[in-house]
Amino acid sequence: MDRNQVTQKILSTKVAKRMRWADLAQEFGQSKEWTTAALLGQMTFSRAQADKAQQLFDLTDEEAAWLQIVPYKGSLPTAVPTDPLIYRWYEIVSVYGTTIKELIHEEFGDGIMSAIDFSMDIQREADPKGDRVQVVLSGKFLPYKSY
Amino acid sequence: MDRNQVTQKILSTKVAKRMRWADLAQEFGQSKEWTTAALLGQMTFSRAQADKAQQLFDLTDEEAAWLQIVPYKGSLPTAVPTDPLIYRWYEIVSVYGTTIKELIHEEFGDGIMSAIDFSMDIQREADPKGDRVQVVLSGKFLPYKSY
Amino acid sequence: MDRNQVTQKILSTKVAKRMRWADLAQEFGQSKEWTTAALLGQMTFSRAQADKAQQLFDLTDEEAAWLQIVPYKGSLPTAVPTDPLIYRWYEIVSVYGTTIKELIHEEFGDGIMSAIDFSMDIQREADPKGDRVQVVLSGKFLPYKSY
Amino acid sequence: MDRNQVTQKILSTKVAKRMRWADLAQEFGQSKEWTTAALLGQMTFSRAQADKAQQLFDLTDEEAAWLQIVPYKGSLPTAVPTDPLIYRWYEIVSVYGTTIKELIHEEFGDGIMSAIDFSMDIQREADPKGDRVQVVLSGKFLPYKSY
Amino acid sequence: MDRNQVTQKILSTKVAKRMRWADLAQEFGQSKEWTTAALLGQMTFSRAQADKAQQLFDLTDEEAAWLQIVPYKGSLPTAVPTDPLIYRWYEIVSVYGTTIKELIHEEFGDGIMSAIDFSMDIQREADPKGDRVQVVLSGKFLPYKSY
Amino acid sequence: MDRNQVTQKILSTKVAKRMRWADLAQEFGQSKEWTTAALLGQMTFSRAQADKAQQLFDLTDEEAAWLQIVPYKGSLPTAVPTDPLIYRWYEIVSVYGTTIKELIHEEFGDGIMSAIDFSMDIQREADPKGDRVQVVLSGKFLPYKSY
Amino acid sequence: MDRNQVTQKILSTKVAKRMRWADLAQEFGQSKEWTTAALLGQMTFSRAQADKAQQLFDLTDEEAAWLQIVPYKGSLPTAVPTDPLIYRWYEIVSVYGTTIKELIHEEFGDGIMSAIDFSMDIQREADPKGDRVQVVLSGKFLPYKSY
Amino acid sequence: MDRNQVTQKILSTKVAKRMRWADLAQEFGQSKEWTTAALLGQMTFSRAQADKAQQLFDLTDEEAAWLQIVPYKGSLPTAVPTDPLIYRWYEIVSVYGTTIKELIHEEFGDGIMSAIDFSMDIQREADPKGDRVQVVLSGKFLPYKSY
Amino acid sequence: MDRNQVTQKILSTKVAKRMRWADLAQEFGQSKEWTTAALLGQMTFSRAQADKAQQLFDLTDEEAAWLQIVPYKGSLPTAVPTDPLIYRWYEIVSVYGTTIKELIHEEFGDGIMSAIDFSMDIQREADPKGDRVQVVLSGKFLPYKSY
Amino acid sequence: MDRNQVTQKILSTKVAKRMRWADLAQEFGQSKEWTTAALLGQMTFSRAQADKAQQLFDLTDEEAAWLQIVPYKGSLPTAVPTDPLIYRWYEIVSVYGTTIKELIHEEFGDGIMSAIDFSMDIQREADPKGDRVQVVLSGKFLPYKSY
Repeated sequence: MDRNQVTQKILSTKVAKRMRWADLAQEFGQSKEWTTAALLGQMTFSRAQADKAQQLFDLTDEEAAWLQIVPYKGSLPTAVPTDPLIYRWYEIVSVYGTTIKELIHEEFGDGIMSAIDFSMDIQREADPKGDRVQVVLSGKFLPYKSY
Repeated sequence: MDRNQVTQKILSTKVAKRMRWADLAQEFGQSKEWTTAALLGQMTFSRAQADKAQQLFDLTDEEAAWLQIVPYKGSLPTAVPTDPLIYRWYEIVSVYGTTIKELIHEEFGDGIMSAIDFSMDIQREADPKGDRVQVVLSGKFLPYKSY
Repeated sequence: MDRNQVTQKILSTKVAKRMRWADLAQEFGQSKEWTTAALLGQMTFSRAQADKAQQLFDLTDEEAAWLQIVPYKGSLPTAVPTDPLIYRWYEIVSVYGTTIKELIHEEFGDGIMSAIDFSMDIQREADPKGDRVQVVLSGKFLPYKSY
Repeated sequence: MDRNQVTQKILSTKVAKRMRWADLAQEFGQSKEWTTAALLGQMTFSRAQADKAQQLFDLTDEEAAWLQIVPYKGSLPTAVPTDPLIYRWYEIVSVYGTTIKELIHEEFGDGIMSAIDFSMDIQREADPKGDRVQVVLSGKFLPYKSY
Repeated sequence: MDRNQVTQKILSTKVAKRMRWADLAQEFGQSKEWTTAALLGQMTFSRAQADKAQQLFDLTDEEAAWLQIVPYKGSLPTAVPTDPLIYRWYEIVSVYGTTIKELIHEEFGDGIMSAIDFSMDIQREADPKGDRVQVVLSGKFLPYKSY
Repeated sequence: MDRNQVTQKILSTKVAKRMRWADLAQEFGQSKEWTTAALLGQMTFSRAQADKAQQLFDLTDEEAAWLQIVPYKGSLPTAVPTDPLIYRWYEIVSVYGTTIKELIHEEFGDGIMSAIDFSMDIQREADPKGDRVQVVLSGKFLPYKSY
Repeated sequence: MDRNQVTQKILSTKVAKRMRWADLAQEFGQSKEWTTAALLGQMTFSRAQADKAQQLFDLTDEEAAWLQIVPYKGSLPTAVPTDPLIYRWYEIVSVYGTTIKELIHEEFGDGIMSAIDFSMDIQREADPKGDRVQVVLSGKFLPYKSY
Repeated sequence: MDRNQVTQKILSTKVAKRMRWADLAQEFGQSKEWTTAALLGQMTFSRAQADKAQQLFDLTDEEAAWLQIVPYKGSLPTAVPTDPLIYRWYEIVSVYGTTIKELIHEEFGDGIMSAIDFSMDIQREADPKGDRVQVVLSGKFLPYKSY
Repeated sequence: MDRNQVTQKILSTKVAKRMRWADLAQEFGQSKEWTTAALLGQMTFSRAQADKAQQLFDLTDEEAAWLQIVPYKGSLPTAVPTDPLIYRWYEIVSVYGTTIKELIHEEFGDGIMSAIDFSMDIQREADPKGDRVQVVLSGKFLPYKSY
Repeated sequence: MDRNQVTQKILSTKVAKRMRWADLAQEFGQSKEWTTAALLGQMTFSRAQADKAQQLFDLTDEEAAWLQIVPYKGSLPTAVPTDPLIYRWYEIVSVYGTTIKELIHEEFGDGIMSAIDFSMDIQREADPKGDRVQVVLSGKFLPYKSY
């Protein structure tokens, strides 16, 4: 058994029971962004969170134990994603990557925006010309230091 | 001559004259995000914007004409970026890509968040535990339709 | 269970029952292009469409539920397709890609032809020198805007 | 000297003289699709067409001679194109490739749609919800035969 | 079930029954080249050919039905083949590819040698210094046309 | 200086002087296939052949010396060729590769068809339904031996 | 069933029975190099050799038949091997490849060292500073010929 | 300036002066294998060796200084080499890689054959059926240890 | 059966029994670094170590035998790792690789730091600004020698 | 002009003047590790550090200005490095990557070892069996948090 098999079981159960991510997030008392990433096999569950998942998805004890093991992360089957929605994000990195780099460096100096001390919030933005997806990303700035 | 050569000249001049992106954006009367992307060779200038660039960067008439031609976009030298700042964004797509996909589909149904009808805003977020980079992405939702 | 398994079952049933895409499209009341893409696992079914598929292909309730989940899209096993028919389309993009880009930009300015707000129609074009395949692609033009 | 250098000179001259593809096509008496592909280095010029190009773009005799040599075709710098407009076409092949294959085979049997005995027509399609790009592709069907 | 599984069963049966391709070709009344390619999953069978295959390889009705579906073609597991015999052919394309291109263009003008309207004949060529493999490839020339 | 630069000069001179491969082959007293491959930088010239090339293409002594150095072979810029004519050959290897392998092994046993002790002949094959390209490949069979 | 499955069974049996390659080679009356390559699925067995293998590894008749079919060769899962021992050989090709090429060409002229008419001998070379692996490779020189 | 430019100059001079690797090795008092690899940019020269090279190839002081800097090694332009002679070595690694691994492990246990504490000797092996290339590789065995 | 299956069983048992690497290392009397690598399928067990593993993880005799076979090493599913923790190490190689190379060469001359005669020690480094991971790598220097 | 050109000039000057990294580090008053990475184009110089570099390497004002611009990082020409010294580090990541991951997670929980808040120290470790390279890596642990 490995984490992927547990993720497949969770997804299969979610479809069969027609559950929603937003409702699951409330069950866990976490944001829908963290909850979804965790159930998709990218985050690590605490003991209490694993117990909750065990109950919601009818997991065995061993399956619940796997949720508390840090997974090998990376959710995409190819280096350049083929799915159109996910590709648009890859395209943003491709087209605007050097722009993002220049503007963060101009404001903060040399360093990075953390993808670990990081959070994300996805919302519907009502717009008369067609609703928009608004995503707020927040990552701690980590400076390079000379030593 | 091609657009890359004009971009190189712009970057070289910007370094030599120690210009800042934020100041350049004010010269163009556009956001710093669009201005930077455009000067980095990813966006197309209007005639008036190209005239302004010609004056700021001492461009020839032919160089200014190239700014009004739609460029071949994509700013990165490799499919998986090596630069640590840009890689963190690639990692966000890799780790959270399926999460973003699931949450947008749950809210909007099948479709994508546009990377064309799109804007971006990058700001410093003051934080006592270390300042953060906050990026707001806004893209129109475009639904798939059956026909 | 995942969507690929449902797609495999649909294809297997279609072959065993010697069904035709054109007839299936009539059952769904949609174009043959949308219907085929959907049954091949690239589009999302409404509840009613999934019920129809359940009946046509003897699907279980869980299989029918999977049809209503947005799939991870991309139908090809390799980045450059090996199948000769599909490769010819890749070749059109490779040989004529910059041509298509130049002509759309000359007519519309900077932007793209949408692959989401998009439809396709494939027809036989009778020709005394040998019949031809005629494909009409229609995609909304989406302009880049400065902001 | 090689064909790429001639193409670069043609493009550079076109930008400097602010020429349009549609006007150039009229000069050559060919469609704008063929003319653009040819000037972008993908097609071979006849002697008369090369003479016309020599005059329009101030080419040397050797440059004009290169236009009559069959070029090494393929206009994109990477196997998966990074430019958003051209990528959308790659995405159509990726998402709809198996659909196109199935429908052509259902209508014609085993074989391909030629990318050589092929023509393309790109037009603006007026639409109150936003104008569309309409592309008509026509390729001769070539059957596989048993022997 | 898919075509690959039928191909695997055919190969397995052929080994178990110690059949020869040349004999199988006589059963089908086709060349050994077409017959082998078809049984290896690259060509489409007519109803009568599928019936013959069903009898020779003890196929089920559904397996025989799969033989009449156009397969996704391409017989190699990697883009650059590792098998030494097949690699030599890849090497011929790599070393002599531009030579073949130049000589066909010099004789026929711009166009291609078809790989669809195509046949192949493989024979032993007796030679006192060691027998040789002689392969005759014949493909229709298809010209590019301006339009 | 390297061999590629000599090849570029040869090609450039050939275009400027509107030479033909068939005529050049007669100058060298070799087949058009070997001559073209050699002038395209894939084969090694003898001293006498290099002298002939020096005279035909106005080469310097050092350029002629390079022709007698064994070149680093491989004439294509990418592992999967983008040029349609050369791609068709790659496709033949991809679609028929396992077929060729099976038939050579059935006739000769385990081993390969040499791509070194090898010759090639390309001819026009007149055909009322459209002329064909006929290519005869002849390679010595080399058996694997147990030891 | 395919050859890989037979190879897996052979390896599994070899481990379970704690057999040694050197002993197996004696059973077959061949070198340990050929025997190992053959049992690892890279070489073809004669009828007698397959009978011997059947007895040693408890193979079924069909499994023994597969050993007499020429396998699809290539024993590595990735183009650049990850295993440190095998990588060192890849590194020798990478670092010394052009050296080997130059020295063979200087001695023999244009051509190759055959990897088919080839044998290999691996021995321990005692050395007070630490024993060494000595490998002797012998391949027939095959010259390119002009024609 | 970098090492590649010095290597290019050395090669260019060697061709212009029609030097032989074997003679150059004698000048350096080293094996032809080490000398060739060093002159091809893969090894580091001592001060005395660099002085000798400076004299033989008319190098400047800076060029001679570069020869004493450890180069970035790796002599091939692609991960899978296209040159037929070098490819045969890649093929040996691909086909016999697991065999070499098994036999070294059986004799020595877990560890590698060093590619650093390594030497190579290339000789002509006279053979009435055609001369052979014999290559002796000798590398120190380095064991993995548990700790 | 192969080593991967044994590794999977070990991992599965470790999760089910909630074992810790540090405790397992004590059972084996080896460092936690070697023990973890060995249990993850990268190192070879002695007979005694395999017996210990058999007892700890309820392995069969054949599974224990596989632990004593040298494995095909390399623990990552892709050439560029997607897991953020492992990627940071890849990034260190990418960003600091040439730095490490220069400094080792300046101190030791041409050669390498061995990855075979190698050990590693990972410790927590307490730090008031946030604890740090300290990793000490020790590898024997192996010099290139001229010969 | 870009940063790479400045790096090339620095390297060229360092070789011509036979400077040592350790001495340069003293000039900058930084560690040899940071100094080398910075001069190799991977780190950003302060104004004072750039002035020092300008004086040491005879840089122009524009070249010194480039040193203060954050570079596009990544020092290797290929994703898998070919240089043997650097490859050994890649191999450590490949073979021990999952081990490092498991041990850091066991000690710290889910998170990463930072490659930004990071330092490195490379030393000679005297050893009677052959001196060793000792490298100490220290990176801040950054935990993933649920939110």
